[in-house]
Amino acid sequence: MSTSDRTFPTDPSTSAPTPAADLSSLDLAAVRARERADDIEARLATHPERFRVLTGERPTGPLHIGHLFGTVENRVRLQRSGVETLLVVADYQVITDRDVAGDVRGAVREVVLDYLAAGMDPQRTTIFTHSAVPALHQLMLPFLSLVTVAELDRNPTVKAELAASGGRALSGLLLTYPVHQAADILFCRANLVPVGKDQLPHLETTRTVARRFNQRYSPADPFFPEPDALLSEAPVVLGTDGRKMSKSAGNAIALGADDDTTARAVRGARTDGERHITYDPAGRPEVANLLLLVSLCTGRDPDEVADEIGGRGAGALKALVTDALLAHLAPLRARRAELARDPSVVDDVLARGNARANELAEATIGHVRTLMGMAG
Amino acid sequence: MSTSDRTFPTDPSTSAPTPAADLSSLDLAAVRARERADDIEARLATHPERFRVLTGERPTGPLHIGHLFGTVENRVRLQRSGVETLLVVADYQVITDRDVAGDVRGAVREVVLDYLAAGMDPQRTTIFTHSAVPALHQLMLPFLSLVTVAELDRNPTVKAELAASGGRALSGLLLTYPVHQAADILFCRANLVPVGKDQLPHLETTRTVARRFNQRYSPADPFFPEPDALLSEAPVVLGTDGRKMSKSAGNAIALGADDDTTARAVRGARTDGERHITYDPAGRPEVANLLLLVSLCTGRDPDEVADEIGGRGAGALKALVTDALLAHLAPLRARRAELARDPSVVDDVLARGNARANELAEATIGHVRTLMGMAG
Repeated sequence: MSTSDRTFPTDPSTSAPTPAADLSSLDLAAVRARERADDIEARLATHPERFRVLTGERPTGPLHIGHLFGTVENRVRLQRSGVETLLVVADYQVITDRDVAGDVRGAVREVVLDYLAAGMDPQRTTIFTHSAVPALHQLMLPFLSLVTVAELDRNPTVKAELAASGGRALSGLLLTYPVHQAADILFCRANLVPVGKDQLPHLETTRTVARRFNQRYSPADPFFPEPDALLSEAPVVLGTDGRKMSKSAGNAIALGADDDTTARAVRGARTDGERHITYDPAGRPEVANLLLLVSLCTGRDPDEVADEIGGRGAGALKALVTDALLAHLAPLRARRAELARDPSVVDDVLARGNARANELAEATIGHVRTLMGMAG
Repeated sequence: MSTSDRTFPTDPSTSAPTPAADLSSLDLAAVRARERADDIEARLATHPERFRVLTGERPTGPLHIGHLFGTVENRVRLQRSGVETLLVVADYQVITDRDVAGDVRGAVREVVLDYLAAGMDPQRTTIFTHSAVPALHQLMLPFLSLVTVAELDRNPTVKAELAASGGRALSGLLLTYPVHQAADILFCRANLVPVGKDQLPHLETTRTVARRFNQRYSPADPFFPEPDALLSEAPVVLGTDGRKMSKSAGNAIALGADDDTTARAVRGARTDGERHITYDPAGRPEVANLLLLVSLCTGRDPDEVADEIGGRGAGALKALVTDALLAHLAPLRARRAELARDPSVVDDVLARGNARANELAEATIGHVRTLMGMAG
């Protein structure tokens, strides 16, 4: 199975970095999004029913603790706040940056188990697979007509994915990836998409497509929302080697791993030569990351944790990390084991989610065809 | 309503010319297609059941006599030979080269009436609209992954459509048009596509996509056929101004026009200053075109018709053309008027055709998802 962690764009913890050349447009988008952020958060609190959130993942491997602290817990929080949430498992898009899809079906099942175990509730959240919603794909043709190739060439998503694809020729799929994103988001007329700061520009094509469609086909009564970004300030969790956590780098701790594997991974985590533990993310990133994990699991301040360990060194810190992680993950892992026992659980969740997603997609494409003058 | 006649690529009479820069690849494709042509014709005669033909039109205006003699009569002939035929009315693709779709629904109805009147039999031919087959569009994602942007940039269809689009920026839709064609043809696993000589390269992307999909996902048992071109040697009918007949040029005689309009159009047709009528396509294209029309309607040799008229001049020739056209079109026009009386006729034809097309598309995408490892 392919195990790269580059994912659907709505996942801030694992996206490829945006090339430096785009920093200015990225910063502009960030400034604008921040200006709106307070307003959105306020409206989310008072009127959650006015929002529909689309979020998701490419199932390129099991979820790990980087996903959990980076995005999954935030998604569960959003769901519990009463916001309607759709979660796409973007199985079809696994081939965006690789030639061989692998056992996508198996990967989808693992990811759905991870989400259910982490608290996503299929009664409240529509969990669906991208390949099972034909009407979503019907949006591609009109959407492709609304963007120029020059705009696609300039798109930071495309540039980042191309840079990360290791010298492969730019495929038609990669070039049009931002338009597929637009279809994924707009098929259900989602108006809010959680993103990390470096992904802000990724939403711009979706907003452009929505705006141009409305101008051209429904000027009096805009049909598509221009979705807002919900900026996440979630921490980036490093892997056991001090680099960004990623399944393909072999430095990840999977949500579904057992306790022994987790303890072994923490024991093998890289630290530094200085015995006295301090919380210094810039100067001592590996040690700081371990302290951050304790903090994320326990809610304690990382500086306080560092002071407590002091001269007892990395061994004591790792023991604390292991205890904290095992305790924090225990309920999730127990639920996961329970859910995994009955294969029909995932089948039922996807059957219900896919039915709901198809219902939404068919309603949308019905309106789109009518607005374009081709229904009937 | 938009009235340009650039159509779905399988219509040899109305496609934009291929730029001269591509003549070498065009000639190579033509040579290869000719080598296969005799073999295909022989197999068509003995085993029509081994072929599935996909053909069609973008409904950018009513069909005219250029379509009739260029493609429609050939399609009717194929249908009667027992070859399974699918006819796509590519409503969705009207926006490929224009911003405003217009009354696409009305245009679809007119085109379907034209086809039915001309002899396409909905019991034997699946007549369907492109926008009504969701599963067809699901092929776009995997197909886009199988071609590079560099290949699409070089594609003669894209170059020709871009040249004909009057300085518009290249849209994502136009760049990916050959991949949409591939989906249109391969969704039903058609293995034969009627084309004119200048359209031969248009099939190459479809063949490439089929070949690469098979190599990657079903090497042992190729799933998609690599469709052959069925070369048409149909004549090109000029419009009343001596240029290529095209609705947008205002020089066309619509199949559904009444007799008076037809007679008036022929009377207004451009000829030349020489009274004595001779058949000289190179030297006297307008007069030759009128003689060709008589020949196409009556089966008589155009030289013989010219001799018969001799010094009686263009007036006598036009009278003969009018008589021949009205006689040839009379049964078609009577059927058309009859069919137009009951709006449910077209509704029923499209309902049946769309149901059959969806059935084929769903079976194909089901296999595709299984082959790609993402079914279930």
